[in-house]
Amino acid sequence: MGQGVKSSYTVMPEGSITTPKGFKAGGLHCGLKKTTRHDLGAIVCEVPATAAGVYTMNVFQAAPIKVTKESIQAGGLLRAVIVNSGNANACTGKQGEADAYEMRGKFADAIGVPAEQVAVASTGVIGELLKMDRVLGGIEELPARLAATYEAGDDFCQAILTTDLTKKEVCVSVIIDGKEVHIAGASKGSGMIHPNMATMLGFVTTDAAIGGEALQQLLRQVTDLTFNMITVDGDTSTNDMLVAMASGLAGNSELTQAHPDWAAFADALRYVCEVLAKAIARDGEGATKLVEVQVRGAVSDDSAQAIAKTVIGSSLVKSAVFGADANWGRIIAAVGRAGQPVNPETVDIRLGDIVTLEQSRPVGFDEDAALEYLKGDTVVIHVDLHGGDGTATAWGCDLTYDYVRINAAYRT
Amino acid sequence: MGQGVKSSYTVMPEGSITTPKGFKAGGLHCGLKKTTRHDLGAIVCEVPATAAGVYTMNVFQAAPIKVTKESIQAGGLLRAVIVNSGNANACTGKQGEADAYEMRGKFADAIGVPAEQVAVASTGVIGELLKMDRVLGGIEELPARLAATYEAGDDFCQAILTTDLTKKEVCVSVIIDGKEVHIAGASKGSGMIHPNMATMLGFVTTDAAIGGEALQQLLRQVTDLTFNMITVDGDTSTNDMLVAMASGLAGNSELTQAHPDWAAFADALRYVCEVLAKAIARDGEGATKLVEVQVRGAVSDDSAQAIAKTVIGSSLVKSAVFGADANWGRIIAAVGRAGQPVNPETVDIRLGDIVTLEQSRPVGFDEDAALEYLKGDTVVIHVDLHGGDGTATAWGCDLTYDYVRINAAYRT
Repeated sequence: MGQGVKSSYTVMPEGSITTPKGFKAGGLHCGLKKTTRHDLGAIVCEVPATAAGVYTMNVFQAAPIKVTKESIQAGGLLRAVIVNSGNANACTGKQGEADAYEMRGKFADAIGVPAEQVAVASTGVIGELLKMDRVLGGIEELPARLAATYEAGDDFCQAILTTDLTKKEVCVSVIIDGKEVHIAGASKGSGMIHPNMATMLGFVTTDAAIGGEALQQLLRQVTDLTFNMITVDGDTSTNDMLVAMASGLAGNSELTQAHPDWAAFADALRYVCEVLAKAIARDGEGATKLVEVQVRGAVSDDSAQAIAKTVIGSSLVKSAVFGADANWGRIIAAVGRAGQPVNPETVDIRLGDIVTLEQSRPVGFDEDAALEYLKGDTVVIHVDLHGGDGTATAWGCDLTYDYVRINAAYRT
Repeated sequence: MGQGVKSSYTVMPEGSITTPKGFKAGGLHCGLKKTTRHDLGAIVCEVPATAAGVYTMNVFQAAPIKVTKESIQAGGLLRAVIVNSGNANACTGKQGEADAYEMRGKFADAIGVPAEQVAVASTGVIGELLKMDRVLGGIEELPARLAATYEAGDDFCQAILTTDLTKKEVCVSVIIDGKEVHIAGASKGSGMIHPNMATMLGFVTTDAAIGGEALQQLLRQVTDLTFNMITVDGDTSTNDMLVAMASGLAGNSELTQAHPDWAAFADALRYVCEVLAKAIARDGEGATKLVEVQVRGAVSDDSAQAIAKTVIGSSLVKSAVFGADANWGRIIAAVGRAGQPVNPETVDIRLGDIVTLEQSRPVGFDEDAALEYLKGDTVVIHVDLHGGDGTATAWGCDLTYDYVRINAAYRT
């Protein structure tokens, strides 16, 4: 998917999740965060949008995951998603469930839609009950803040952040049936990031007309190539959730795999999710740079994915990148422990354009040039196994003092 | 193994790898390390010892692994093992192999034994050729340094260290057939530690009489409960190797599983390997404390092991322990992503004696007491799943600023 398809989408630098027709958004500070940063936000669609979701595979799933699954399964349609940060509402038992249902019901009432057409998401600390008086106060105020403007989209993007330093959003347009279709997204990181079937919080809006089942299948496929290919710290959250909503207001004929523009739409959605996923990796806790691992020559794409994720997840590789140390020995050690078929005699490794290993033998390279390259804000590690046609790309970040600092005292 | 057996071994605080009858050891500085610390060592047995080895499962296996496998397979007997630190002789191609064979041959000549009765081990930086002139110079000097004293054993223990801060050794005695049998061990860590079928370097000497096959099987079983249950950073080395040598000089009748004292011997060997494994975890790169994870109530021991290793390997759990933050939410998130059957409603978590979660519900606890406990030099995390009889224990360490510092500039 996306491979070999000429990109037909256009990036809209001023676009946001409110650009697709039919969507408003907003955000505000209701009092869950200790600072005055936004901590409650919503996206609302003026018509029932076909919806799809992918969720964490963690055995311990937070209360909002249960509520959102129920909403999307009820009729496959969503009018809104309500999100809080500062508290994950995870491991909070029956009270946590009741709180998530109350968030859904109260926000549905506030905007005049059925409760089962509202999704709920939460992110933040695990194991503490939501301060529901603050949440409900925020829900009363929120409808008046909703707008289809860039600023309102920005408020939403801010409201879903926790330890993230930057908001994460993207918008593209793509021509379907000669109509301009928009796809936009917002997401947040930035710790407990090793998505397994989903990521932390991600939201995609589009005005494309597309059936719920087709959207669900496509979202799953795209997730496997994007959000499921990033890691910050190897930990999978209890609250991972990616929700897509399609208003259908662009006026195209319904997208299915048989539609002549299916590939263009799929490629545009993949781009949106890839931008959001890479933004999460680059803004990983404590990170100073984005690291990309490109594997080729594996026996299969699945095998390449496993190897790419092992390399990108290695604490030793991540520390070496932080220190701008061209320590390819750690890269090959990670390749070799991925549990995949690898010929130990035929591996090439490049850091950007700098060849360090060819056919598994060290190549003399310019250490100063390597240092300069590794000091940049993006580092690409190329691994060619010369063992087949499998390829994969994974994204992550470096391991830094700040990662330890942030996580040594997260609750306090 | 060891479960339900009353311990019949006695720890010998002044014992070392030279305590079992028939063994000498020694170490010196030959010039591979930039400091003047020892970097070449050997253990020599006065008779051909039955031998067993377990090795890294990393696809990229260093040259000495190949040579040692060949030696042990040749006749199952070893007279000596020669070890260098400061250079792993990994990813060094044909020249690296030739160098490992030359180390073996030259040391065999120097002590007058057949080359195929010598094992070789190396540890240090990957991808650089050994400075063989220095190694060979050291091999000439080494025989004169070999002795059966505690000090000579200490020289060996020092010679195998890399970033380790402390040497790791242990010695026990156990009565077999009314005879005093000794088992001793030495090991080194302290990064790239996530053993998969073996560990970094470990050496066990014993004067027990035991056949090669029985020793190999037992060593494998014990490794799975000890060295394979530690992690420092999730990375598996190219040089992991554990070698055991049994001189048979204690005079017991040959140990087999049918021997009445088999369980006592097995338990003593398990203890030796557990002490060495825990010492590696406690001295993990940058570590300030030993972390132990005890899992019970899993559906099987294998399942408990997988969960224990996931918790001990979580960067978020490790950072929280460093910060003395009783963040049990990260522990349960790790339990939930281990890919094992877990009932999300029945989990208890304790930090030492401090209950933080009962039946998956938060329990109010004394934060000051928790802080005090987590500031100690050993932290035990208890997880009870209430889902079966499976138990496991894993060991690791905290994730600290110093881990990042050490690994941001290892080569330079």
